[in-house]
Order: sequence, then C-alpha cells, then structure tokens
Amino acid sequence: MHLDHIGIAVADLEATNELIERLLGRAHYKIENVEEQGVSTSFFTAGETGEAKIELVGGVRAGNAIDKFIGKRGQGLHHLAFKVDDIEAELERLKTAGFDVLPGYPSLGADSMRVAFLHPRSTSGVLVEICQPIEANAV
Amino acid sequence: MHLDHIGIAVADLEATNELIERLLGRAHYKIENVEEQGVSTSFFTAGETGEAKIELVGGVRAGNAIDKFIGKRGQGLHHLAFKVDDIEAELERLKTAGFDVLPGYPSLGADSMRVAFLHPRSTSGVLVEICQPIEANAV
Repeated sequence: MHLDHIGIAVADLEATNELIERLLGRAHYKIENVEEQGVSTSFFTAGETGEAKIELVGGVRAGNAIDKFIGKRGQGLHHLAFKVDDIEAELERLKTAGFDVLPGYPSLGADSMRVAFLHPRSTSGVLVEICQPIEANAV
Repeated sequence: MHLDHIGIAVADLEATNELIERLLGRAHYKIENVEEQGVSTSFFTAGETGEAKIELVGGVRAGNAIDKFIGKRGQGLHHLAFKVDDIEAELERLKTAGFDVLPGYPSLGADSMRVAFLHPRSTSGVLVEICQPIEANAV
C-alpha cells in the first residue's frame, strides 16, 4: 500500500489551480470530472519520480462531499490516497484490523480508479482513500 | 520543488504510531524529537520509491504548535512539505509570487532539514513547509 495522491478540498478549482501552479512552479497535467461524486479534479505531480500526485477537488453538483467538508472545516488538506493491487482483499484486511470502511464502496473515482474510504474516526482523523487502477482488474 | 512528506498532527504519538503501522502494514523507520519546536515525530515511508514520507507529529513541550492545532481542528492532516535545493532562493521566489512566509524561519526541523512555512491564508488553506537537507548546504 503506497501513497498515490494527496487530496485538497478547494472552493474555486480554477483559482486554486492557478495558485498551486505558482507554488510548485509547474502546471497541472489534467482536469477530470467525476460525475458519480459530483466533483471536478485537477492533478499535479508532487514527488520527484512523478508517482505521488496532488489532486485538487472542487464540488460541482449540489450536495457533494467537498462543499460539505469546506462548510465545516474550510479549504485545505482533505484525504490521503493509497494504491493497492486488490482493493477487495485490502478492504477485508483493513476491516479485520479495526478500520471503518465507508459503506457503498468501492465505486468509480477519478484517474480511472476504483476507490473506497476509511472513516477518519478510525484513523486518527485522516480520511484515507484506498484505490486500485481499473486496468489492473481487467483480464 | 518536490513532495518530501505529509505531516499528521497527533495527540498520542505512540498510539497513532501503532495505528499507522496497522494501516500501512509496515513499521515506522525512526522516531525523532525536535527540541526547537517542542514536538516529537515518527516517520513512515509512503511512496513506492520510498521518497515521500509520512511524518506523525505530536506535541511534547507546553505551547507547541501541534497541540494548538489539535485544540482548534482536532487530529489529522497538518502540512505538506516540499524539498528544495536552496531554501533562501526558494523563499524569495515564493514571496515574490505572493505567498506569506512565516517570520522566524528558516529554522532547524526534523530529519536534518532547515525548514520554513507558508501561511495557509496564502495557499488555499494548506500549511506548506519548504525544507532543505542540511547536508546540501555544507561545502
């Protein structure tokens, strides 16, 4: 289980995209809408090898989780995502280890991933995403 | 400027250390006290290449920044740290680009780094650490 990306909740995706570009000194490499979750995302490379990414996430459809989060806590760091090879096996392992997997997942996330989430109450306050590239599932 | 680590503010370093070990399926690789900041830290590898790290940070001395943060927002994601080769030049670039560098830095941080911070009000709510390995400064 390795870091895939850091999610940042933003109120204005376009403005924050410009700000993070100015911070990192490089442009984002893609924008993607995630219809199922009612959000839009922008991705930047973060780590030196390009593996770890920063994902800006902004709400698009009413009732989305990002606008709810910002309403409670303001903009800022939102989640850590870890990539696995077999999301079902990993979620079973995590449940057995005492972590609370949010119901209704895995579902389709950004970046061609199947995603699931661990409730922050079981992880010392960190919303943890577990993700698996969809390609790895195809036979 | 590349991701060095993600900082997580914790109330009980020992307990969260055990929890993150259970989450990631691997042990931390070091514990370090940072006297100057009144905190103790625990490091885990995060990214696949081992470059990106997770730093748990817990308060030790009264009045430390971590306990203040937890008092306001609870435990959880605290900062993103980016490694640079020349921290003075990078801070000048960031000031010119409109970011608020916290006064009193660079100072000595964990992991043999000189560190400085950008105020979250200038970064869409994300506390950003800029760090430079001390070795890189030696001639």
